[in-house]
Amino acid sequence: MKCKVCGQTAHVALNSHNTGFCSKCFCDFFSRQVARGIESQKLLAKQEPVLVAISGGKDSLSLMLELSRQGYRVSGLFIDLAIPDSSGIARQVVERFCKKHGLDLQIISLADEGLAIPLVKAALNRPVCSACGKIKRHYFNRAAIDGGFAALATGHNLDDETARLLSNTMRWDGAYLSSQGPLLEAENGFARRIKPLWRLSEFETANYAFIEGIEHSCASCPYSPGASFTTLKNILGRLEKAMPGRKLDFYQSFLKHGRPVFAASAPKAEDALKPCENCGSPTSSGDLCGVCRIRIAVRERIQA
Amino acid sequence: MKCKVCGQTAHVALNSHNTGFCSKCFCDFFSRQVARGIESQKLLAKQEPVLVAISGGKDSLSLMLELSRQGYRVSGLFIDLAIPDSSGIARQVVERFCKKHGLDLQIISLADEGLAIPLVKAALNRPVCSACGKIKRHYFNRAAIDGGFAALATGHNLDDETARLLSNTMRWDGAYLSSQGPLLEAENGFARRIKPLWRLSEFETANYAFIEGIEHSCASCPYSPGASFTTLKNILGRLEKAMPGRKLDFYQSFLKHGRPVFAASAPKAEDALKPCENCGSPTSSGDLCGVCRIRIAVRERIQA
Repeated sequence: MKCKVCGQTAHVALNSHNTGFCSKCFCDFFSRQVARGIESQKLLAKQEPVLVAISGGKDSLSLMLELSRQGYRVSGLFIDLAIPDSSGIARQVVERFCKKHGLDLQIISLADEGLAIPLVKAALNRPVCSACGKIKRHYFNRAAIDGGFAALATGHNLDDETARLLSNTMRWDGAYLSSQGPLLEAENGFARRIKPLWRLSEFETANYAFIEGIEHSCASCPYSPGASFTTLKNILGRLEKAMPGRKLDFYQSFLKHGRPVFAASAPKAEDALKPCENCGSPTSSGDLCGVCRIRIAVRERIQA
Repeated sequence: MKCKVCGQTAHVALNSHNTGFCSKCFCDFFSRQVARGIESQKLLAKQEPVLVAISGGKDSLSLMLELSRQGYRVSGLFIDLAIPDSSGIARQVVERFCKKHGLDLQIISLADEGLAIPLVKAALNRPVCSACGKIKRHYFNRAAIDGGFAALATGHNLDDETARLLSNTMRWDGAYLSSQGPLLEAENGFARRIKPLWRLSEFETANYAFIEGIEHSCASCPYSPGASFTTLKNILGRLEKAMPGRKLDFYQSFLKHGRPVFAASAPKAEDALKPCENCGSPTSSGDLCGVCRIRIAVRERIQA
């Protein structure tokens, strides 16, 4: 197969776009898709400072690199979960990446916050994944608000987004279907949240990271061996194979025809939010936010 | 595995219900599911005469038999498409079935109506499937209205319905999502349309047909070798295997939380309907309905 742009030997075949590219033209394609994803959904303006949540994985590092190359004012945030082995490795990967590319990096250590994930896991009588996600979202949001960033960007790709959309759709969950998308506007103490990689598949992001020589951490979380939404991702992968382009169609069509219908009918969840009495973060779960309640549970566990 | 009801050897394993049944208890289960499907969605009352569209396949014949056993006032309608080999075989199967069980049967011959499907296929410059579907729906509806039936019942099962729902959802097609379901109320010249097998999978219906010794026609249509929605059915089959019960959840949750949202927002397609100038059937496609236009095209083709 020849590169559709320059005619040299293609290195990346893209069935969903019925085409193939050489390495250089693929990276140009990747950049255009990011730019198109940002512009079409009005995610971010060039002059706005953006905080990029980086985990050390290929998606978030590719996002950080590409945004910086496109001239966005990026700054990275890594949350050290204090999980033995994997957190330390990811932290080193992120530090080397930002140093190599001359990018700002802020690190929040959950151990310093009394919320090391192994302690949280020990303190809770349930799987730690949802608590871990809650804690990360809390600190990402706090850092974006306190740092005066216009937006918080995450590396969610098309596979993440369509798997989540299918999950929400299987349950016809109006609260989620009314708000899922690459842009969540800032409101009620939440920073604007954006997903600039929403048009790009995991395969495409992996190719970009490989071609650009981005060293990334592949270690899966020891507490959650399977990737999230594995079954739904596999199913959507089969659909994409049978009908190339269908995943992006599904998501774009949702943004245009599905979400507005649910947004018009769903009650706004944010109506019930108020500031946490301890940390001031928006919460709908009582006087204290979920993270402050987790912190208390961890403290009690240690003292017990 | 033992039958969950009587403890004898189970012959049918139902993963979606996490159980198994012997042949007799499975048929009782099947009957309960049909009754529950009818009652929960208020499809039909016992005293109402119902016209059952029968094709000679296992679904429609199982439906016909089960409705008659539950005391509904059923009458069968078979449309002879005049497709060489397959239509004649299906017609004989249907005639033997109705004779064996003492059930009313009406037959409409498309050859007599100037609409034999091979002629229609020759007259059209496109695949015949959608025209064939349109013609069948036209005659089913006419027969239900003219015969004074309270409803027209079809043998669509859970696999048919969820594949169609997923197809509509992938496109976020509000017009279809606002009306899909086991019940379409009578309006604007259309008879009430009901799908009493909506809670039962193809596997379950096939088991019922096998256990009850229902002879059925397996010949696939020579013009449409692949079953409709094959890819989507396969995908939903994989989902069901990974998460038993998910298909019925998806459909029921749609009826409860999805369809009402789309119904509230979608413009009513029926607003634009008017009677066909030739046959009086409701149409939105001009002075003549689609079937009368097909009939003219066939006549012109024969005369050419």
